[in-house]
Amino acid sequence: MSDIEKLVSELLDGKHRALAKAITYIENNRSGYRELISELHQHTGNADVIGITGSPGAGKSTLVDKMAKTYRDRGKTVGVIAIDPSSPFSGGAVLGDRIRMASTVGDMDVFFRSMSARGTLGGLSTATTDAVKALDAFGKDKIIVETVGAGQNEVDIVKTADTVAVLVPPASGDDIQMLKAGILEIADIFVVNKADLDGADMTVKELQEMIHMRSDGPSPDAGHHGADALVDTDVEFPGESSEDWEPAIVETVAKSGDGIDEFLETLQKHVDWLEESGEGTRQARQRYAAEIQRLIREDVARLVERDLEAAGGLDAKVDEVLAKESDPYTVADEMLAAIRNPVNTTDTE
Amino acid sequence: MSDIEKLVSELLDGKHRALAKAITYIENNRSGYRELISELHQHTGNADVIGITGSPGAGKSTLVDKMAKTYRDRGKTVGVIAIDPSSPFSGGAVLGDRIRMASTVGDMDVFFRSMSARGTLGGLSTATTDAVKALDAFGKDKIIVETVGAGQNEVDIVKTADTVAVLVPPASGDDIQMLKAGILEIADIFVVNKADLDGADMTVKELQEMIHMRSDGPSPDAGHHGADALVDTDVEFPGESSEDWEPAIVETVAKSGDGIDEFLETLQKHVDWLEESGEGTRQARQRYAAEIQRLIREDVARLVERDLEAAGGLDAKVDEVLAKESDPYTVADEMLAAIRNPVNTTDTE
Repeated sequence: MSDIEKLVSELLDGKHRALAKAITYIENNRSGYRELISELHQHTGNADVIGITGSPGAGKSTLVDKMAKTYRDRGKTVGVIAIDPSSPFSGGAVLGDRIRMASTVGDMDVFFRSMSARGTLGGLSTATTDAVKALDAFGKDKIIVETVGAGQNEVDIVKTADTVAVLVPPASGDDIQMLKAGILEIADIFVVNKADLDGADMTVKELQEMIHMRSDGPSPDAGHHGADALVDTDVEFPGESSEDWEPAIVETVAKSGDGIDEFLETLQKHVDWLEESGEGTRQARQRYAAEIQRLIREDVARLVERDLEAAGGLDAKVDEVLAKESDPYTVADEMLAAIRNPVNTTDTE
Repeated sequence: MSDIEKLVSELLDGKHRALAKAITYIENNRSGYRELISELHQHTGNADVIGITGSPGAGKSTLVDKMAKTYRDRGKTVGVIAIDPSSPFSGGAVLGDRIRMASTVGDMDVFFRSMSARGTLGGLSTATTDAVKALDAFGKDKIIVETVGAGQNEVDIVKTADTVAVLVPPASGDDIQMLKAGILEIADIFVVNKADLDGADMTVKELQEMIHMRSDGPSPDAGHHGADALVDTDVEFPGESSEDWEPAIVETVAKSGDGIDEFLETLQKHVDWLEESGEGTRQARQRYAAEIQRLIREDVARLVERDLEAAGGLDAKVDEVLAKESDPYTVADEMLAAIRNPVNTTDTE
C-alpha cells in the first residue's frame, strides 16, 4: 500500500489526523497530492457546501461559529475552511485566534482549517476546491467556505460553494457599492448581520431594491454605466442561479444567535431548490468545467515556466526582442514547439 | 513574393491601404498575420504611444481629435486606435460617428481605426498591441490608443502605451472613487477636461491630494481597507512609473482647444523622462515580457481547446467527472499528454 493509498483509506475511515494531513498535502502542493485528490473524487458529492463572504468586520467568524454549533446540535458534522487571500499570516496564527473564540472548541466534528495565499503554494481556488473535496470524501455533512472581502479572488473562491451567502453590516453604504460591483451576481442569500444596530432596516430595503432592479432588467442608472452593462449581456455567471431563485434576505445577530435558525432554514431551502430545479447539477457541471480548465492552465503555465528557464529565462528572450533579433510571436512559437516536443516526458509534475 | 511579404513591403512604403489591410488581418486573426507582425517588429520602436482613458462623457474623442489636429499642424503624423471593449458595435458604426466629427477628416496622415471586443476575433490586448506595431512600423510619429471606461480590460489595453493620460471630468465624485480602485496606478498624466465647468478646481485639488497621499505611503483610510492594502505590497505595476515621475495634472477644454498645448508639452516631458531615466526601456521590457506570456497563453488555450474537441469536447469530460468515472486531475493529465504528444504537429495555428 502506497503512502497515498494509506492516507486515502484512513481519511475515508474518518480519521481526523488523515484529513488534516491531506489538507497539508494540498496546501504544500506536495508530490502525490494530485493522486490523492483523484482518489477522493469518487467519494465526494454528499456534502452541502456553503460559501460565506463579506467585508472585514461584517461578523463572518462569529456567524460561522454559530452555524457550526447549531449544525452540531442537530447531529450534523461540519468542516470549515477559512480563506484569507490577502493575509500575510500562515494558517497557524489565524487558526489560533479562531480556536480561542470558537464555541465548538474540543468538538472534533467541527473541523476548522484556515488557509491564506502565502500558506498555499498553488492557486488558492484550486486549494479550496481540493480541501472541500477532502472534507466531502471524509463525510462532513456541511462544509463552510469562509472568505474575507469581495475581490475577484474571493468571488472565485466562493464559487466553490453550492450556496453563497453574503454578509452585509447595517448602514454600510460602501459595502452596498461593492456589492453592485460584482458580488451581487453570486449571492444566493444576503445576511444582514448585526441586525440590532441602527440602519439594519435601511440596509434590508436597499438590498431589496437592488434585487428587484436586477430582476426587472438593467438598472436605472445604466445611463452612466451603460457601456459596462452591455459587457455582461453574453456573460453567464456560474454562481448566478437562473430566473427561479431570487436572492433571499435574512437578518441575524450572530453574537446572540438571533436569526441563525431562519438563516439555516433559508440555506436548506436553497439546497432543496438546487436539487428540485436541476440547477444543482447544472452548477456542478459548470464548476467541473471551470476546474478542468483551471488545472490545465496551471499545468501548462508550469511547463511554459520550465521551458522558458531551459531557454535561458524570459529575460533572455525579452533581450532578443528588444534587440529586434526576435519578436514576441517567434518566441511564443519556440516555446510552443518546446512544449509539444519535450526532450523527456517524465517530469510533467 | 508571398502575400504577406508584399503587404509588409507596401506598408513600409507608406501605403495607407496596406496599413488598413494589415489591421484587418489583425482584427480577423487571419492566417498569416503572425508572420506579418513578426516581420514588422524590427521596424518598430520609433513612435510615441499615448494611451487615453476615462469614463464615458469625459470628452476623450474631442480631446483626441484636437491632439491629432495639433500634432498635424506641427508636421507630425498621427495614428489613432479607439478601443471600446464593451461595445456591441463593429468598428464601422463607431468609425462613422467619429469621421463626421473629426476635425482632421480627409487628412490621411491621421489614420483612425476603431476596434471593439466583437470586432476582433482574438484578444483585444493582443489586437491593440499588434495594431500599434503596424502603425509604428508604418512610420506614424504619434500613436494614440483611446479606450472607454476604467475596467481591467481598459487597464490592460492602455498599458500598451508609453504614456498614459486619464481624463477626469470636473466634480465627478464617482470617477475619483473609480480612480482609487485601480486607474491611479497607471496614470502618468491626469487631464481635468471641461475645465471651464464648475468643480474643476475641486477636482484638481482632489487629484493632488490623491497623488500626495500615494507618494507619502499608504492612504489614511487604509484602516477600512487594510486587508486590501496588504495584497499590494508585493505587486509591481508595470505602468507605475517609479519614484521619479509624479503624475502631472493638466486642465483642458478640449472643445475650444484651451490647454491642449500644455497637455502636449507635458506628454513630451514624460517621453523625455522615459528616455533619460531609462524607465522607457524598463517598461518596454515589461511590456514584451507580458506580451510573450500572453501569446503563449493564448496559443496554449487554442491547443487545449482543439484537443478537448478531439476528445469529445469539455462537456463529455464533465460528464465523466460527474459520473465519477474520471476526475478533474485525471482529465487535466490526459489533456496535457495530448498537448505534449500531438498526433501531428502541422496545425499549431
